[in-house]
Amino acid sequence: MVTKLALLGAGRIGKVHARAIAQDKRAKLVAVVDAMADAAQAIADSTGCKVSTIDAVEADGDIDAVIICTPTNTHADLIERFAKAGKAIFCEKPIDLDVDRAKACVETVRRTGAKVMLGFNRRFDPHFRAVRQAIDDGRIGKVEMVTITSRDPGPPPAEYIKVSGGIFRDMTIHDFDMARFLLGEEIHSVMASGAVLVDPKIGELGDYDSASLILTTKSGRQAIISNSRRASYGYDQRIEVHGSLGSVAAENQRPVSIEIANKDGYTRPPLHDFFMTRYTEAYAAEISAFIDSVESGSEPSPSAEDGVIALMLADAALQAVKEGKNVVIGG
Amino acid sequence: MVTKLALLGAGRIGKVHARAIAQDKRAKLVAVVDAMADAAQAIADSTGCKVSTIDAVEADGDIDAVIICTPTNTHADLIERFAKAGKAIFCEKPIDLDVDRAKACVETVRRTGAKVMLGFNRRFDPHFRAVRQAIDDGRIGKVEMVTITSRDPGPPPAEYIKVSGGIFRDMTIHDFDMARFLLGEEIHSVMASGAVLVDPKIGELGDYDSASLILTTKSGRQAIISNSRRASYGYDQRIEVHGSLGSVAAENQRPVSIEIANKDGYTRPPLHDFFMTRYTEAYAAEISAFIDSVESGSEPSPSAEDGVIALMLADAALQAVKEGKNVVIGG
Amino acid sequence: MVTKLALLGAGRIGKVHARAIAQDKRAKLVAVVDAMADAAQAIADSTGCKVSTIDAVEADGDIDAVIICTPTNTHADLIERFAKAGKAIFCEKPIDLDVDRAKACVETVRRTGAKVMLGFNRRFDPHFRAVRQAIDDGRIGKVEMVTITSRDPGPPPAEYIKVSGGIFRDMTIHDFDMARFLLGEEIHSVMASGAVLVDPKIGELGDYDSASLILTTKSGRQAIISNSRRASYGYDQRIEVHGSLGSVAAENQRPVSIEIANKDGYTRPPLHDFFMTRYTEAYAAEISAFIDSVESGSEPSPSAEDGVIALMLADAALQAVKEGKNVVIGG
Amino acid sequence: MVTKLALLGAGRIGKVHARAIAQDKRAKLVAVVDAMADAAQAIADSTGCKVSTIDAVEADGDIDAVIICTPTNTHADLIERFAKAGKAIFCEKPIDLDVDRAKACVETVRRTGAKVMLGFNRRFDPHFRAVRQAIDDGRIGKVEMVTITSRDPGPPPAEYIKVSGGIFRDMTIHDFDMARFLLGEEIHSVMASGAVLVDPKIGELGDYDSASLILTTKSGRQAIISNSRRASYGYDQRIEVHGSLGSVAAENQRPVSIEIANKDGYTRPPLHDFFMTRYTEAYAAEISAFIDSVESGSEPSPSAEDGVIALMLADAALQAVKEGKNVVIGG
Repeated sequence: MVTKLALLGAGRIGKVHARAIAQDKRAKLVAVVDAMADAAQAIADSTGCKVSTIDAVEADGDIDAVIICTPTNTHADLIERFAKAGKAIFCEKPIDLDVDRAKACVETVRRTGAKVMLGFNRRFDPHFRAVRQAIDDGRIGKVEMVTITSRDPGPPPAEYIKVSGGIFRDMTIHDFDMARFLLGEEIHSVMASGAVLVDPKIGELGDYDSASLILTTKSGRQAIISNSRRASYGYDQRIEVHGSLGSVAAENQRPVSIEIANKDGYTRPPLHDFFMTRYTEAYAAEISAFIDSVESGSEPSPSAEDGVIALMLADAALQAVKEGKNVVIGG
Repeated sequence: MVTKLALLGAGRIGKVHARAIAQDKRAKLVAVVDAMADAAQAIADSTGCKVSTIDAVEADGDIDAVIICTPTNTHADLIERFAKAGKAIFCEKPIDLDVDRAKACVETVRRTGAKVMLGFNRRFDPHFRAVRQAIDDGRIGKVEMVTITSRDPGPPPAEYIKVSGGIFRDMTIHDFDMARFLLGEEIHSVMASGAVLVDPKIGELGDYDSASLILTTKSGRQAIISNSRRASYGYDQRIEVHGSLGSVAAENQRPVSIEIANKDGYTRPPLHDFFMTRYTEAYAAEISAFIDSVESGSEPSPSAEDGVIALMLADAALQAVKEGKNVVIGG
Repeated sequence: MVTKLALLGAGRIGKVHARAIAQDKRAKLVAVVDAMADAAQAIADSTGCKVSTIDAVEADGDIDAVIICTPTNTHADLIERFAKAGKAIFCEKPIDLDVDRAKACVETVRRTGAKVMLGFNRRFDPHFRAVRQAIDDGRIGKVEMVTITSRDPGPPPAEYIKVSGGIFRDMTIHDFDMARFLLGEEIHSVMASGAVLVDPKIGELGDYDSASLILTTKSGRQAIISNSRRASYGYDQRIEVHGSLGSVAAENQRPVSIEIANKDGYTRPPLHDFFMTRYTEAYAAEISAFIDSVESGSEPSPSAEDGVIALMLADAALQAVKEGKNVVIGG
Repeated sequence: MVTKLALLGAGRIGKVHARAIAQDKRAKLVAVVDAMADAAQAIADSTGCKVSTIDAVEADGDIDAVIICTPTNTHADLIERFAKAGKAIFCEKPIDLDVDRAKACVETVRRTGAKVMLGFNRRFDPHFRAVRQAIDDGRIGKVEMVTITSRDPGPPPAEYIKVSGGIFRDMTIHDFDMARFLLGEEIHSVMASGAVLVDPKIGELGDYDSASLILTTKSGRQAIISNSRRASYGYDQRIEVHGSLGSVAAENQRPVSIEIANKDGYTRPPLHDFFMTRYTEAYAAEISAFIDSVESGSEPSPSAEDGVIALMLADAALQAVKEGKNVVIGG
């Protein structure tokens, strides 16, 4: 049986997911919804699905699942609505910028028993998965310290910053989830240093563009996160896990791996300059995993709860910077 | 206008090309032909094209181009037949194991004016293309020496060796083409050393499994090729070009780039273990280039002539090993 | 004129310095002092200097400078004594485990006008110097974030831990100095997480074996330090500096750089397993810089004041862990 | 008992050896001889040995061994003379540019029973030794193919080229010895391509500046050598050995290993630009091995015979280029 999906939101990331569904024989995109008629029509044309509306998708008993790629402020409402409608749900992160709204949404979902998967796509990057696999295989012994370097090629426009929820909820949130994915133990407390070193306009909007964080678990395991909104050499995405028997690291990725040697030295090209080319495989694997879970009825992962915890860590980081202290989660 | 294609041969490589066509909006696969009905039907099912016959494809005025992935001994005949039928032709290498037959085929094609592209897919590998681009951009000055390391994960079965035409026509032929692609000057002479170090059965069939070659151009530029039918660490495919101002090298590729450090040292995973995963992007880019050429009416490259020259180099290499001398091409 | 030196302390590090002096034509080791007669005699034999006493060295007007490699608890007294005696002084870090004693010592030195250089040898590592040089040359623009990974191959014996002053004063102290060397701005505050993950005995002695730290400057520049007392793969010593125009990193060092590829992947040997082999060149360059300064009369660097600041940072780190807050230096 | 040595030749390489002897407790340099009085005196001053003459060294029964670093055309005579005088002999390569003269010298040595070690220093490079060790430890199985890349930073002056004996006797000779060191089987035949691509003046002197060679053993093992007199990026010295179970490679060496990342990519500094800095450790280890052999009375390695074989390979390579054929050694 083929899983029938509707896509809510036909923007940049919606297109990526539509393509992933088209390549998966187990699934079929049957409807696309977007406030911008042109955007929806473009996806309908390239995939053969029909342009639809939220109401029609909700009412259509033939549709098994929805992929939510609409603006952040609609996520929680749509999740609740489709959970009640009995659909399986894949939603881009975050559930909401407000942690209480997110918690309420998760509670609603829980009552309906609906399956919700949250779009922390990096868990599906083949290199990061291989890191996790090495840990699970016992290759590095007991996990002790995680180091995550996560830097964007350049800062987003001010308009984006304004609605982003700030660096911790917008950018570090991926790293919080990755730290949890790798630490093997829940995070207990957060300390953080934030600064405006890249662009003063970011500071004027009350946000930071450079941040360093230490996450500590109950048993003392530590994760370090280093964030910057600007890396001239490309999209810098490294993780390293240190354990009792050794270490495992995922290296940066570049579009082509050549090296030119001349009198000035040995030069390799810059890294990917865009998250979509960097995480192409991760996006496809993520949708595939969602289809797996719809097909098999298994619990999807990462879950909506994972989204709430990442938001709590983001809030804690902000408090940690402002108060200059180690903030205990849920404390 | 969409280019309409027929696929001749529904085997392993036929499937790869069918998928590449499916992802290209400018083209449509309309027919598939294979002696094995099941194989043809499988591709028909997944792409929506119809199962057909050689005769029907030849007669179908709507079909613009054919993709020939049938056994090697049918290539020359099919090329000639479809050249006469006025179709554009993409054919897997080689044209024929016999260089005279290949030359005759090219002569026939020339008279018809048909466009033929030969499947030297490695020219389309993004890393190797970047090497060539670096040369074209003048980054390493005048090309002087090319080094190609080309080793298979393991030897093919004896049945394959028997009909392969020998290591030089089957395996080194890719490296001959790559050397020509990079040297910037035609190859003048070939010397070679061949041995049976991997599997005595290969020797019993009159073939070699390990070979070293030096190709020299008129002006003295040199290309070294190192071939082995076995590399325990995966599909070893490196090229390096040394020029008057510097060097450029394409590194090996692996499915995941992690590194595990422990008391035994730092370990990265093996390379790709299969040419199809190693050259996934190259296959797609190759078909895209063919469609480009059909659309625009431009000369496709690599051409059938490139295929003949590579065969001549293979024959020269065999003679060089047997006679222990530097064999001049066409000499 | 040749600089005449006396060596106080003929232990492991004393031997290293004796050898460095022997290789420097501008200097001559004339005396060695150690409570262990055998140790002193061994150095005397290999260098041709004479075995002497503290008193004799102090009284010898021919001796220009002393190299202090005695136990930590004698450093401050010896520095003061030889400063008053008008000798130039090189002293191994730290001045004292107690920051007030160290400050008093520096104050005494200041009054005498004596020149004191402190043995933060890592500033002289050729790779780390090249990192600093790249910064000074403007290659990475304005410094924003420093990342220091510093892990020992294995924990020291309990006896050493007891007198070490704890991980921050013993191990991290090098990283504090390196962070200051690279940040280009004084450190304003310290936050830290410390845990016992390697060896419970270290915890029983009231110390930590795993620590993560964030140092922040007034303008918001950040340095991250990751410390562990155990790294199965060797002596892990990496630094990376991120700036407005790019990044610069110093890679780990290994005794031999070969790589073995087989069915299990690509393996390079472990790193150096001992600080003395890792920092061989740094030790020699450090003594050479001291001789430079004695010869030229210039101010030696790193100075005794640098030693005091590193100690203050260590004390702040300890307080930060214990109180769970961002501790302002001198605050 | 301390081995007493005399140094014949106080030039660039003589100084290197004098320093190596000074650092070895088991040996003492007692005399230095050079036609240039100043050069000899400089070494005498720095080491405390006395300036002497060939005759006096020959007559001095206290001297155990000589280190011959004089011009190439004096090597064979000096080896014979000191062999007859009963001294152990270390001589820089080659024994002579003329293979017959070299063979006669070795024959004379054989009759005297003197111990002669030839200065193929690269066998003592720690990285290349580690490659050999990996082979000896069975890490890559049976050796099948050796690849040696050996490129100088820039061509020597015309005056040097004139007396060098040509690229094969001067430069490739090291690679011939290295190939023998790694192949584990004697070389049976040589084929080679030589060209003038770097500097036409080298061609006017009848020499080549770019060469590719294939060496084949009786059983078919192959070694490839790639030589150029110019590499803009530094002293390019790589070896790679491919075997039945895997491969082992020694990477290039650079003075500092940092990497700078910016908008143009990731850049590491050029390699060493001089053979003396590249092979510093090799020179010291070589002299140490010679002293070992004098002390223990064991056969030194590489031997004078190794020097003769390398010369024969060089002559064969020259013939191979000129005649365009695979030249069998001693054939």
